[in-house]
Amino acid sequence: MKRLKDLNTDELNELRQNLQKQYDAYKNQKLSLNMARGKPCPEQLDLSMGMLDLLTSTSDLTDANGTDIRNYGGLDGIPEAKAFFAQMMDISPEEIMVGGNASLSMMYDTVSAAMLHGVPDSTVPWSKLPSVKFLCPSPGYDRHFAICERQNIEMITVDMTDVGPDMDQVEKLVREDAAIKGIWCVPKYSNPTGITYSDEVVDRLARMETKASDFRIFWDNAYIVHHLTDRPDHLKNIMDACKAAGHPDRVFLFSSTSKVTFPGGGVAVMASSVNNLNFLKQKFSVQTIGPDKFNQLRHVRFLKDMEHLKAHMKKHAAILKPKFDTVIKILESELGGGQIASWSRPNGGYFISLNTLDGCAKEVVQMAKEVGVTLTPAGATFPYGKDPRDRNIRIAPSFPPLSELTTAIKILCLCIQIVSIEKRLSQSVAQ
Amino acid sequence: MKRLKDLNTDELNELRQNLQKQYDAYKNQKLSLNMARGKPCPEQLDLSMGMLDLLTSTSDLTDANGTDIRNYGGLDGIPEAKAFFAQMMDISPEEIMVGGNASLSMMYDTVSAAMLHGVPDSTVPWSKLPSVKFLCPSPGYDRHFAICERQNIEMITVDMTDVGPDMDQVEKLVREDAAIKGIWCVPKYSNPTGITYSDEVVDRLARMETKASDFRIFWDNAYIVHHLTDRPDHLKNIMDACKAAGHPDRVFLFSSTSKVTFPGGGVAVMASSVNNLNFLKQKFSVQTIGPDKFNQLRHVRFLKDMEHLKAHMKKHAAILKPKFDTVIKILESELGGGQIASWSRPNGGYFISLNTLDGCAKEVVQMAKEVGVTLTPAGATFPYGKDPRDRNIRIAPSFPPLSELTTAIKILCLCIQIVSIEKRLSQSVAQ
Repeated sequence: MKRLKDLNTDELNELRQNLQKQYDAYKNQKLSLNMARGKPCPEQLDLSMGMLDLLTSTSDLTDANGTDIRNYGGLDGIPEAKAFFAQMMDISPEEIMVGGNASLSMMYDTVSAAMLHGVPDSTVPWSKLPSVKFLCPSPGYDRHFAICERQNIEMITVDMTDVGPDMDQVEKLVREDAAIKGIWCVPKYSNPTGITYSDEVVDRLARMETKASDFRIFWDNAYIVHHLTDRPDHLKNIMDACKAAGHPDRVFLFSSTSKVTFPGGGVAVMASSVNNLNFLKQKFSVQTIGPDKFNQLRHVRFLKDMEHLKAHMKKHAAILKPKFDTVIKILESELGGGQIASWSRPNGGYFISLNTLDGCAKEVVQMAKEVGVTLTPAGATFPYGKDPRDRNIRIAPSFPPLSELTTAIKILCLCIQIVSIEKRLSQSVAQ
Repeated sequence: MKRLKDLNTDELNELRQNLQKQYDAYKNQKLSLNMARGKPCPEQLDLSMGMLDLLTSTSDLTDANGTDIRNYGGLDGIPEAKAFFAQMMDISPEEIMVGGNASLSMMYDTVSAAMLHGVPDSTVPWSKLPSVKFLCPSPGYDRHFAICERQNIEMITVDMTDVGPDMDQVEKLVREDAAIKGIWCVPKYSNPTGITYSDEVVDRLARMETKASDFRIFWDNAYIVHHLTDRPDHLKNIMDACKAAGHPDRVFLFSSTSKVTFPGGGVAVMASSVNNLNFLKQKFSVQTIGPDKFNQLRHVRFLKDMEHLKAHMKKHAAILKPKFDTVIKILESELGGGQIASWSRPNGGYFISLNTLDGCAKEVVQMAKEVGVTLTPAGATFPYGKDPRDRNIRIAPSFPPLSELTTAIKILCLCIQIVSIEKRLSQSVAQ
């Protein structure tokens, strides 16, 4: 498209009218397209159906320790599940705790336990302090921010760069403010920007001096094996980095199979130092009798080992890659060169992050909604739902079929153009 | 056995020596018998193996709403699971929330939400108050008490009678103290006393005036369908009673299939007014993406309806009843008439509650442990683990095979006799 600044007012008005006609035509189609959440499509779910045939009434239901998985017992998961996830996360099995179906619950419970009891290095429970703050590299994941809001944790926005959070900002903040107890990270194929933290960022996070002696990194490695290409991003092992830096208790890691097998019945996992885990297990033992052991065994028998997991994830990529390519192709053809939007080209994960001109995102999302295209609410990728520049839009291409996706992104491009022209026109008037 | 008070010191010493010999003989057997927790035995678990064959790769995996259960969505359970549990609990489906595998987690999360945010009638979150207290009818369930301890809720012990908590005590306490926000109840085949609340107790709980406007009953109906005989106890519907009394939001009900199907992979459920549930769902949505929907569907397809459920629970009873009968038979033959212990004869549930002479329970449990019989720690059935009379012992007969159970209870009887004689002897000396 042409750059708007190269057009005069008449040309802008004409273009706007033309685009509006196209927009109105969509209005009549009564569309209902949802791209709000990173949700696998049915074809992806079909990849794991075989898992449902692996535990039957004639199966051996004892775990590697000889425990009858049908009965009570085992707060931190069956041994074979620990071993599997230890390999997946490149962490030793005793540093692993395997849970129920939601890593979100494990994150929530970990934050909640720290608020009620602190962590091993705390002098008091976090909730007894006058204020508790978390750093939130943004754009980021809205559900992390919701946990902070629920627990009355103040959020401090930190800028995201192409290689992770702006570490100059992070280091300065944690060095000076003892109330800063944590940082949320989606280190690989970050939600939503799709970037992977550089080795330097990982090392600086592991090494940095924190005024709070009980500072913790909440490392949500949700897309750890969710590559879209044959040249996956490399992420440095933060557990090793923290140990090497003399901060072995600094990090809580999380992951799950929600987007490996089934979001409606996956297995979640967390990892941390034995010291941290022992502390947490004592707290968790009050609130649960332990996770569903059947589903853990079912998963391990289905995913087997790293080789099988890799092959399985390639099948996901084969379904997802064309969707990501379609979105990027349309964005390029409709908006390329126009200097009114920029977008990510991730090597994995579930999102494409798009930035409009400042002050346009809310209106774009609203316009799209009015013709039946639901996007993640503008602002959701920032603490308190407030994008200071009102420009970030998270696109989740995974769920809709290609044809619907094409329509939805064309509509998105149309809305971005219309709102940008209006912006330009109102600026011309103001000048 | 003879009454100890009918024996003189020589006779007591002789009896003691004789019993000690029997005890020492057990010591040499290096036994390892665990009766600490209400845990189904393998034969009971075998009853539900057919459930594992009901969801396969060729199954229809859409719920009654047409939702693909494999994907995200549905915070409060699939419709057919709500309908099933609504029937089981005699409550309408919109007052039901079906969860993951642990009702303990639902109880914990409900208490935790009230601490962080209050309940619909609260003016402030409970944790912002100078003190929060719960009534704990005791002997009761140690895991309820652990939730209170974890959340810094002060526990007030209330006596248990044969028809429920002492309601004179309860009514007086809640009328006078606004800090009392809740009461824990296991209303049917109570843990551990085995009694069922009378209609009058249910009505008084529903009707009573509470100084706290946001008082809540935590109604853990864990043994709702867990009858041991063909003449099951009747429990009045507390939801109806609360509505009739003008307190529709007063009660949170909980139950699960942990002891219907598998403790290691059951389905938990809670029920409350729509008002309460809407409030809770808003809070829970921050901490979970929703429960495992596969396991809910699997359960509904297996348990089907109330008729099947009833037939299924009869099979459990057929396995459990002989174990309960054995325990009671041995207690009667070894201790009957001796006036050194009394015990319950429940019509359902998982426990036999035994009271020794005052001041003997801890020593009895310790002696039993020393010959390899693990019982629930003495005191565990009271708040803070402190039985004021040190007399209550919870017997869980479900897990051990009959032969082991027989040995364990004989040892228990031996320990009770020895400790009681010692008690008697020390009293003689003191006199």
